[in-house]
Amino acid sequence: MQIVLDAMGSDDCPGPELEAAVEAVRQFGDEIILVGPVEQLKPRLEAQKASGIRLVDATEVITMEDKGMSLALKAKRPKSKTTMAIGIDLVKNGEADAFVTAGNTGGAMATAYFRMGTLPGVERAGLTATFPVKNGFCVVLDIGANPDCKPEHLVQFAIMGSVYAQKIRGIPSPRVGLLSNGEEGGKGNELVKATYPLLEASQLNFIGNVEGKELFGGQADVVVCDGFTGNILLKSTEAVARLVAEMIGEELKRSKNPGVLLGGLLIKKTLKQAIKQKLDPDEIGAAPLLGINGLVYIGHGRSNARALVSAIRTARQGVQARLLDSIRLAIEEQVNRQAILPS
Amino acid sequence: MQIVLDAMGSDDCPGPELEAAVEAVRQFGDEIILVGPVEQLKPRLEAQKASGIRLVDATEVITMEDKGMSLALKAKRPKSKTTMAIGIDLVKNGEADAFVTAGNTGGAMATAYFRMGTLPGVERAGLTATFPVKNGFCVVLDIGANPDCKPEHLVQFAIMGSVYAQKIRGIPSPRVGLLSNGEEGGKGNELVKATYPLLEASQLNFIGNVEGKELFGGQADVVVCDGFTGNILLKSTEAVARLVAEMIGEELKRSKNPGVLLGGLLIKKTLKQAIKQKLDPDEIGAAPLLGINGLVYIGHGRSNARALVSAIRTARQGVQARLLDSIRLAIEEQVNRQAILPS
Repeated sequence: MQIVLDAMGSDDCPGPELEAAVEAVRQFGDEIILVGPVEQLKPRLEAQKASGIRLVDATEVITMEDKGMSLALKAKRPKSKTTMAIGIDLVKNGEADAFVTAGNTGGAMATAYFRMGTLPGVERAGLTATFPVKNGFCVVLDIGANPDCKPEHLVQFAIMGSVYAQKIRGIPSPRVGLLSNGEEGGKGNELVKATYPLLEASQLNFIGNVEGKELFGGQADVVVCDGFTGNILLKSTEAVARLVAEMIGEELKRSKNPGVLLGGLLIKKTLKQAIKQKLDPDEIGAAPLLGINGLVYIGHGRSNARALVSAIRTARQGVQARLLDSIRLAIEEQVNRQAILPS
Repeated sequence: MQIVLDAMGSDDCPGPELEAAVEAVRQFGDEIILVGPVEQLKPRLEAQKASGIRLVDATEVITMEDKGMSLALKAKRPKSKTTMAIGIDLVKNGEADAFVTAGNTGGAMATAYFRMGTLPGVERAGLTATFPVKNGFCVVLDIGANPDCKPEHLVQFAIMGSVYAQKIRGIPSPRVGLLSNGEEGGKGNELVKATYPLLEASQLNFIGNVEGKELFGGQADVVVCDGFTGNILLKSTEAVARLVAEMIGEELKRSKNPGVLLGGLLIKKTLKQAIKQKLDPDEIGAAPLLGINGLVYIGHGRSNARALVSAIRTARQGVQARLLDSIRLAIEEQVNRQAILPS
């Protein structure tokens, strides 16, 4: 199996990427393809006496500053020399199985769209996050690729998310919820109200509208929403979780009760670990862009080496589970079903 | 000052309402008007030898089951006998200063809309929540009254929220943020992108787009969004905060390290208090429906007596600060400014 890692993705690149590539080869045994400026990367790899890493040269980088037309050009040009374009082309041309980057999310999406396109029948790719919830995980999409969506997009997200939960999380019949401002059917904005009957009529295990309580209570395996709402959900819950953890820590430190102060000291490490484990995106490492005609995983810009190893592990799971074929098949089935339905 | 309390609002009504009315009279000195079935309420008040509470008879209740046409009729009929209709009419007719209910939010909104209408120039009323954030609070609206909004609605929410933060939280020039999926201007869904220039051109202290990090980091005093997004924000962050607190508690209990177990026991009470203080909606008690031509405050269905006393306190603050007049004035100013602008 060949995973391509963008050497110039993370905020502190290429340090974490080099470290992660070395560690991934050690952990998983397979070769890692590192795409980036060879001139810069080669001496650093040689200094580490690293083996099992193939360098592919890419002299340009899509940075966080790239947007609009400059980004589109870097993503689209056939001869683009960006790490993302060259890395994604390797997967597209069958020379590698999946592409992993911690770089500019918009850049990775644009590059994947322009170079790989979407799977037949898929209108919009959805960015997918796996949220830690009570007693497990919940796959949520779209978390930011499409700020404005149509009902059909949400139905396709539901199909793709359902396949993802089956293949990657091993859930036979994933419960699919529609994120809304009320559990009852009929609640929602125009998009949700138009999506509800489509999901109800689908072959999915649709459990209806869900709110935060159900999502984080572990009552759904997959939750779909437009990319604007999903992004707000992701970022605001991350921020609140950190705030709560911080507030608790401060409260314990501020206490004047010596017992509480002692207690705070005694639990400090456990508390930190618990919070890290529960909130840390490093555990998953990267989110797949589902619906693209190829496996593309996007990690946090602030990823460290550990997060990037997790991202590579997550990408490997996708390859091993033949995620792409399963999604292609599920979408094909939906398209066929629609074709025979009376319109 | 006369505050009207819906006796039949909370899930456990009228127990918490009776207790809260007694406590509010004790704390604030002013008479409380309790609206509900006198036959049922009177003996309970007499048994408590309560004074300072005026009972106004209302024999019907808008329940959580009321929706659609049945709810609209109960809200609208001139002779409606619901606690909400009678309570809101008391405020409308100048016999009281503000109405407080922990009942069906949709019912309270519909009743307020039909009976009081909106302030001149206000198209949509916004439901307002005060979020605990780092080092303070943030006023967020709309949190659920309008699942679909137009840019002008968000601008009006921003004006009203700004007045609210000034008058109630004492912030001279409230920083107003627009909730979006990215801090940079230009990020957002169609609604946000169309709203951004309007807020930029306004007289408000507009700080641009904000994400969860800025909101919960205390970088904005007011954040505006459509009611769908706001509701997802409210409910998902509540759910996550509870989940994190729960997970930490479990982690401490599960530990095999006797020091950590001891530490957990020592901090248990402080931890619970900290979480309660930070997450508990009881501290604020109720959210005002801003833009209605009268002061209407809506609390959580699961409010207890303490939460209802807070709700009454919050409503009293609104009356004392002449919140309604200030909002009326701010909207008038905006309307006038628009009238003289070249279109």
